[in-house]
Amino acid sequence: MRVMVTGGLGVNGAWVVRELLAGGHDPVAVDVQADFRLLPDLEGQIEFEQLDVRDLDGLERVMRSRDVECVAHLAALIPADRDPHAGFEINAMGTVNVLEAARRSEVRRVAFTSSKAVYAAMTGRHGHPEYVPIDESHPRAPFPRLRVYSASKILAEEAGCQYADAYGLEFLALRFAAIYAPGKHDRQANIGVLATIVENAMRGEPVRVEHGGDQGDDMMYVKDVANAVVRACVAERPRNWAFNVGTGTASTLREFADAVRAAVPGADIEVGAGFDHLGLGPMYCVMDISRARDELGYEPRYGLREGVADYVATARALGLARA
Amino acid sequence: MRVMVTGGLGVNGAWVVRELLAGGHDPVAVDVQADFRLLPDLEGQIEFEQLDVRDLDGLERVMRSRDVECVAHLAALIPADRDPHAGFEINAMGTVNVLEAARRSEVRRVAFTSSKAVYAAMTGRHGHPEYVPIDESHPRAPFPRLRVYSASKILAEEAGCQYADAYGLEFLALRFAAIYAPGKHDRQANIGVLATIVENAMRGEPVRVEHGGDQGDDMMYVKDVANAVVRACVAERPRNWAFNVGTGTASTLREFADAVRAAVPGADIEVGAGFDHLGLGPMYCVMDISRARDELGYEPRYGLREGVADYVATARALGLARA
Repeated sequence: MRVMVTGGLGVNGAWVVRELLAGGHDPVAVDVQADFRLLPDLEGQIEFEQLDVRDLDGLERVMRSRDVECVAHLAALIPADRDPHAGFEINAMGTVNVLEAARRSEVRRVAFTSSKAVYAAMTGRHGHPEYVPIDESHPRAPFPRLRVYSASKILAEEAGCQYADAYGLEFLALRFAAIYAPGKHDRQANIGVLATIVENAMRGEPVRVEHGGDQGDDMMYVKDVANAVVRACVAERPRNWAFNVGTGTASTLREFADAVRAAVPGADIEVGAGFDHLGLGPMYCVMDISRARDELGYEPRYGLREGVADYVATARALGLARA
Repeated sequence: MRVMVTGGLGVNGAWVVRELLAGGHDPVAVDVQADFRLLPDLEGQIEFEQLDVRDLDGLERVMRSRDVECVAHLAALIPADRDPHAGFEINAMGTVNVLEAARRSEVRRVAFTSSKAVYAAMTGRHGHPEYVPIDESHPRAPFPRLRVYSASKILAEEAGCQYADAYGLEFLALRFAAIYAPGKHDRQANIGVLATIVENAMRGEPVRVEHGGDQGDDMMYVKDVANAVVRACVAERPRNWAFNVGTGTASTLREFADAVRAAVPGADIEVGAGFDHLGLGPMYCVMDISRARDELGYEPRYGLREGVADYVATARALGLARA
């Protein structure tokens, strides 16, 4: 299948491109920058278009000329709040552009990378210490501490449903848990605490996280993200359009640090006690992934230890996080 | 005060322009079309700029060149669902453009016309027969049968709050109840049932509404809308940013028809029994307007009889709804 991957050179998209190749598909990577640092071995080897999702006509042109059958739409400005105009234009309107271009060029499906940030505050039994998993019926509401990102994801989901209802475009939204991914520290600094711990430890720098070690959260590795995205592209007749994706289990930030210590011997990491290491309020949770299991055949392949170990090995292989 | 009114020649904006003039203010009407049918007496008499809210640089240019102090942002594509790309681009991104241009040109305040469509379904005690008023703490959620409109209003509110927090731009959102307004039948057909009843009755045409006569709703006249918008422009130090605006009382569609019969003698109107005359699901409600009363000094001036009588007289004076 020919799958356009927007944000295809990014911290998530690069692994979607690799997963597509591994599955025998034909990725068309689209990215606003021709930065192949996460895919150095594939530069010149894969189809690539340098394109901004703000460019509706460009999207349509590429979808038509490359005979795209499915779009995995990952492109986003992160962090989005620093420049709200660009944040909304890229994250919200950019998704509408992808949908409109897909409709015009008769693409069959758009698989959109949404987020737990569409959900209303995860409080009560969903929070510490119970972490009762959140399913897709949890109410959506703009998240006040991530306004541009959250409101854009909600609008994007609504846009996808509208295009599905009005035009028959197939639309799936994957609502991801917290993701750790090689390169995220450099590219998505403010929401990349997990990546910062790994990459600073790899650089031999002391890591100090003042508080939040007791905070539980569903932490997923980017290769599971890629797996889920590819499954969303190929799944036959899923009954639903929204899917929570994570590991389905809670890990604390302290446990994450332990996994990093195991993968980076001698790592100097101190994580203080307490909660809410991101300082964003109640947006930590465990995802109920039974729907993704049932309808997409998704199963997380990486526990915390495996994911962090792979992260470190992968970052080394890519020459990232060098001292 | 110099107030830019986007959508300033539209069914709501035209009355905001008049209300500003009546209050001794200086309106700058901005509209995508130079259609003065609702302001024929003011054509050439008021400041006007033909401009699309998709034109960020144009908005900034006008705000700067006209020394705009406050923007009353009403411009929107209605209905929005028929062309979702244009709907999101005008209603959602257009509002972000207004905010960004206001920030760049140091406008003090943006007063935004939001809607009850930001609210989650009005069910249980908020629905028939109790109609317990909805206040501003009612949860927001995209409304499935008005997706583009609703998701755009929610995103626009979030954008306003973000610009307020990040840049100190003052932002107020007025969440309006159902509005009846001269000219609405022609311009906003699908959500203009109330206007359709009035204007078809004025044309001497029989009006048949198959069902919904028992549906209660908060129905407000456009001159009260204009009053609220101007109050939102001039209010000093309101404590909150979101305000429900309506009449604070429920009227049924049958009662609305009675008011039209009183204002248009001989009108041939039949309204069937039942609920949900718009076929949109649970989005009928009564607004708790105590916050707007307290902080904006807003008080509805038009009951159903007065509003409909004024509508008919106004439409006649403007030469609308002629047989």
